[in-house]
Amino acid sequence: MPELRKDPVANRWVIISSERAQRPHSFVPQKPEKKHTTFCPFDYGNEHITPNEIFAIRPYGSPKGSPNWTLRVVPNKFPALRIEGDLNKEGEGLYDKMNGIGAHEVIIETPNHDETLSTMSRDRFKDVLFAYRERMIDLKRDVRFRYVLVFKNHGEQAGASLSHSHSQLIALPIVPKRVLEELENCSRYFNFKERCLICDIVRQEIQQGARIVAENTDFIAFCPYAPRFPFEVWLLPKYHQSAYDDIKDDKLENLSIIFQNVLQKIDSVLEEPDYNFVLHTVPFTDIHNNYYHWHFEIIPKLTKVAGFEWGSGFYINPTPPEEAAKYLREI
Amino acid sequence: MPELRKDPVANRWVIISSERAQRPHSFVPQKPEKKHTTFCPFDYGNEHITPNEIFAIRPYGSPKGSPNWTLRVVPNKFPALRIEGDLNKEGEGLYDKMNGIGAHEVIIETPNHDETLSTMSRDRFKDVLFAYRERMIDLKRDVRFRYVLVFKNHGEQAGASLSHSHSQLIALPIVPKRVLEELENCSRYFNFKERCLICDIVRQEIQQGARIVAENTDFIAFCPYAPRFPFEVWLLPKYHQSAYDDIKDDKLENLSIIFQNVLQKIDSVLEEPDYNFVLHTVPFTDIHNNYYHWHFEIIPKLTKVAGFEWGSGFYINPTPPEEAAKYLREI
Repeated sequence: MPELRKDPVANRWVIISSERAQRPHSFVPQKPEKKHTTFCPFDYGNEHITPNEIFAIRPYGSPKGSPNWTLRVVPNKFPALRIEGDLNKEGEGLYDKMNGIGAHEVIIETPNHDETLSTMSRDRFKDVLFAYRERMIDLKRDVRFRYVLVFKNHGEQAGASLSHSHSQLIALPIVPKRVLEELENCSRYFNFKERCLICDIVRQEIQQGARIVAENTDFIAFCPYAPRFPFEVWLLPKYHQSAYDDIKDDKLENLSIIFQNVLQKIDSVLEEPDYNFVLHTVPFTDIHNNYYHWHFEIIPKLTKVAGFEWGSGFYINPTPPEEAAKYLREI
Repeated sequence: MPELRKDPVANRWVIISSERAQRPHSFVPQKPEKKHTTFCPFDYGNEHITPNEIFAIRPYGSPKGSPNWTLRVVPNKFPALRIEGDLNKEGEGLYDKMNGIGAHEVIIETPNHDETLSTMSRDRFKDVLFAYRERMIDLKRDVRFRYVLVFKNHGEQAGASLSHSHSQLIALPIVPKRVLEELENCSRYFNFKERCLICDIVRQEIQQGARIVAENTDFIAFCPYAPRFPFEVWLLPKYHQSAYDDIKDDKLENLSIIFQNVLQKIDSVLEEPDYNFVLHTVPFTDIHNNYYHWHFEIIPKLTKVAGFEWGSGFYINPTPPEEAAKYLREI
């Protein structure tokens, strides 16, 4: 059983996935291997290779697990967390731990092996955003979970082990540290100002203009004022909304337009880099509040992060966000 | 002038080093290049290539900047921060910024190009630890600075741009986020228990034994209970001490023995991996307290960190610390 353990000094939970324990030799040598995969478990016809389908977009009447779907959600075959069992929270001296209970799912975004989020049709992209929402709404019913982490690793440098376009979600019995910190900061700001911090940021970004990458009626994409990484982009609604799963059907269209546009801009300016994105939203226990505001953080994988940044939480970014935004805006 | 900017959502300061701004083409392609360097600015005889020496260990009477030193500290030729100027703290709407004032120094650990911390003599290693202390004591006199970040990037994968063995330090007008969080957590624990959290951890680690890597009279090295990375090791004094620069001369010997031993163990078990280490110590404004405890965090560069870990502050570690410690302890 994987474990969730808390570091008392950093106050941070970590998954120790002891069942797939890695021995020293498995780390040596750490040379990037070119994979010549001819077989892909996410292609049409290989539905029996993946664990059983949890959710799919497929023609009415088409049976579960059969081909001709356009999007599928399946459990991760090598999950970091286990879905069955109780949390069994307990102490170990001054340390805290619980069982590694959670869901780890893969959103197969398209049946076409060579399509990416940048190149797929708008409708298909919209379905991906729709699937995120539907899975979150479903997982919220499980009282063991407090948060769903939606993310995408695109390309080998960004941590993807399969090239077929997919994103992932992890339902967790704890709230990730960064989200928790953001909640605290946003809540403190709200107590002081009676306004949502991120709504205020949106207003200032629109007024200043220099960091805006793209914009439509409902959404805005900009390079944040103090980004950790070159060409980091945030994407969020202009209107206040704390939980992503509250997004209305009629907003998904505009979100897919700007999201795909931003990824295409990144592809174009940076020549199709590997990238990651992560959705930040409110925890299950704290929905519909007036101080937090969901957003996607998109990070192209461009720089090798030096170790002191890991160890200190302190970052050096060689590209001012105003310059990055200008390149992305003007392409 | 580089800028320090604060992200109000994450509450984190970032250096934007706008003067060495990187344009998109400089990121493309991001292929690792094999450097065939025959010339090394850190070798004997090339002292004139580096900026002027700040500190050195050299025979009595040997002039500054001449060869025959055994350790040199010089300003970084491409500093992330500038030493001259005022902070000029100011707001920009709801954002906060200040000038990127700070010191960025390189500790050239040895004149021998092919020596590493694992292979150099014990005395030379001790000199490195001595130099860290001396530079911290000196930089503390500058009232603009609040913290000195001492770190090492060993190997290209860990962010080193030169192979000649060296570490770095950055004096900052702010306290790095991770250290700030640790201070808060340790202080909260102290208020509750009247004991130093890390002293308590040391006691429990000694009692449990399973995560210990090495130990001597004064110091202990162990894999932390909830490590973010496989084979992460913490190294710290068994006795309470909040500021590294308070370390006594007679303790440097024992620290160099265990530190070199741990690095040799890592080299041996993981076949000389690239690695980083970072020193966590109290800020200048808050020395000699009874709740914080300096420590080195050593992180071998083994796994590609997937993007969701960046974006969430939530980590999956495939190697339980008890297993990692066993390998390291028994070698």
